[in-house]
Amino acid sequence: MSVTAAKGFTAAGIAAGIKENGNPDLALVVNNGPRRAAAGVFTSNRVKAAPVLWSEQVLKSGQVSAVVLNSGGANACTGPKGFQDTHATAEKVAEVLGRGAVEVAVCSTGLIGVLLPMDKLLPGVETAADQLSEHGGEKAAIAIKTTDTVHKTAVVSGKDGWTVGGMAKGAGMLAPGLATMLVVLTTDADLDGDVLDKALRAATNVTFDRVDSDGCMSTNDTVLLLASGSSGITPEYDEFAEAVRAVCDDLGQQLIRDAEGASKDIKVEVVNAASEADAVEVGRSIARNNLLKCAIHGEDPNWGRVLSAIGTTSAAFEPDRLNVAINGVWVCKNGSVGEDRELVDMRYREVHIVADLAAGNESATIWTNDLTADYVHENSAYSS
Amino acid sequence: MSVTAAKGFTAAGIAAGIKENGNPDLALVVNNGPRRAAAGVFTSNRVKAAPVLWSEQVLKSGQVSAVVLNSGGANACTGPKGFQDTHATAEKVAEVLGRGAVEVAVCSTGLIGVLLPMDKLLPGVETAADQLSEHGGEKAAIAIKTTDTVHKTAVVSGKDGWTVGGMAKGAGMLAPGLATMLVVLTTDADLDGDVLDKALRAATNVTFDRVDSDGCMSTNDTVLLLASGSSGITPEYDEFAEAVRAVCDDLGQQLIRDAEGASKDIKVEVVNAASEADAVEVGRSIARNNLLKCAIHGEDPNWGRVLSAIGTTSAAFEPDRLNVAINGVWVCKNGSVGEDRELVDMRYREVHIVADLAAGNESATIWTNDLTADYVHENSAYSS
Repeated sequence: MSVTAAKGFTAAGIAAGIKENGNPDLALVVNNGPRRAAAGVFTSNRVKAAPVLWSEQVLKSGQVSAVVLNSGGANACTGPKGFQDTHATAEKVAEVLGRGAVEVAVCSTGLIGVLLPMDKLLPGVETAADQLSEHGGEKAAIAIKTTDTVHKTAVVSGKDGWTVGGMAKGAGMLAPGLATMLVVLTTDADLDGDVLDKALRAATNVTFDRVDSDGCMSTNDTVLLLASGSSGITPEYDEFAEAVRAVCDDLGQQLIRDAEGASKDIKVEVVNAASEADAVEVGRSIARNNLLKCAIHGEDPNWGRVLSAIGTTSAAFEPDRLNVAINGVWVCKNGSVGEDRELVDMRYREVHIVADLAAGNESATIWTNDLTADYVHENSAYSS
Repeated sequence: MSVTAAKGFTAAGIAAGIKENGNPDLALVVNNGPRRAAAGVFTSNRVKAAPVLWSEQVLKSGQVSAVVLNSGGANACTGPKGFQDTHATAEKVAEVLGRGAVEVAVCSTGLIGVLLPMDKLLPGVETAADQLSEHGGEKAAIAIKTTDTVHKTAVVSGKDGWTVGGMAKGAGMLAPGLATMLVVLTTDADLDGDVLDKALRAATNVTFDRVDSDGCMSTNDTVLLLASGSSGITPEYDEFAEAVRAVCDDLGQQLIRDAEGASKDIKVEVVNAASEADAVEVGRSIARNNLLKCAIHGEDPNWGRVLSAIGTTSAAFEPDRLNVAINGVWVCKNGSVGEDRELVDMRYREVHIVADLAAGNESATIWTNDLTADYVHENSAYSS
């Protein structure tokens, strides 16, 4: 049910002709209230797309009436004209919905450095508005796909009648500081923007921010959380925050499983770190090691590459106390040869690496993928 | 002529049986004096191989009589036994040459986490010592190859009768903090260890440290510079330092051209940076962007991926002042669309990216390679 699982929201997804192949490429999500509270988290890349610059301003008010999303073009590195196009898109949505443009968030995804075909996009907004429906969440999720092979949605309901639902797109350029992706979450819980902001930041910090498919960071990453308040229920913060985290975690896992060209999903669990920051730093370093990612692709439990990656970090550890397990086999003990690497069974898609720093009690988990010839093919043959 | 181009050195390269395929795998380089001055630079990876830990100690005296190098095993992450093996290797060299073990540097390269076959290595040292020759430089260079497709040597001569020569191995895991590689440089200039150290650090800082094939950092990187003094000439520091830099630059270029699976050599030149550190940070970020490396492989001048990479750095710049040229075409101007990307000719092996930060007067050049299916194949099928 995606973004329309929560009451008070309508959505649509259509083919506006932005994509040359005629696939759906424009989505609209509308908050019908009574509340229009919202929070947003954006890419930390300093080169930000026009829609990110726009939506960051919109979110400062903590109010969002509608979100318009397009695939088929990122509208990034497009200069003043690109920003004007984003502005015009928001104005068009405001006009057809009878809202203010300052409450319309805009998201774009696709190739960088190309202007959007506004002659197709603006009429598309009218078409999408005509098709808004309480059952439109699925179509909206489909319309934001780029190289995604599947559309991604998730829903969690609170025990007393409120719901958090959402949709995501993303299949490459997943990295900390946000996976490259667009995510819209909706809830009918009755909460204000500050509470939404707190819950959203807490959730993305341990979910999307720990999904690192290829180490690359996008110019367009956006995660929005909109609350309609139409359930009339104000849940306990902890229960609500957990629901948001669960939806983000579910969508994050779907992103990893659909990463471009990947044949393995790799769970890098760093344990016994001196601090959570150390655990995250080590996890990211392991997750970004191309040689290790190739080895995992080849089903080779090459733990030396794990140690090489750990060794490049500033985390607290002693080299001769490091332990590494791959799929349950402690192939490295005390920084040296451990159990027989032949015991490691790597036939399945999920691979579990545990790096024990023996330096404290903190831990963190980073998800990544293997590096494959298909990844190279997809990203050398496809301009994205 | 490699390490025996300079007077006062002998070398040998033999097949000791460390490699199961019978290829040459053991090299010996001996400084016959009258000086035995030396300097060394080692990996900054905190997980260091036993031979690195040993050789770092040896170099503290500024004196090296001989270097023994093996391929076929890195002797990294091998615990106390690995260190004992390195020590025993140095002792064996000392015994056969009649020198002190504390003046014998040891280098190893190959798979991490496997003990060396000492029953083959130690007899190999005797064989190599028997074959030491003033013409042995080429054979030594061949014996240290791993996945290298060619052996690498370079020589520069000063105008008044002194010489710097050297050999290198390395074809993958090339990254800052030293490309993964072993390098031995020799000179017959009459200089002490402090001068050698200064010249070597200055040279590696702008050559090997700026070669970043795949972002991975080795446990075994070692660059040694040995001086015999046998020319009797003490060159001006600047002239000598330039010769060392030129030899390092030449060898570094050979490493890039032989990087595993690469089809393109990419020169990333960052100009108009506020500081050299900014230029290096931006250059490394571009050089490590897998999506860009795939695009270059596909001969796609995807400058959006260059801007995405720049945006992840902390360097001083304004996004709307960035300019990017690919092979001479300014495809990005003022952070937006520049000249027609169709004008970029990417048919040749060398690709030249210029990133203009418009923030100052400093610059730096980082070399990298494209990311290819062959890279994935070599590093998933070959345990290294």
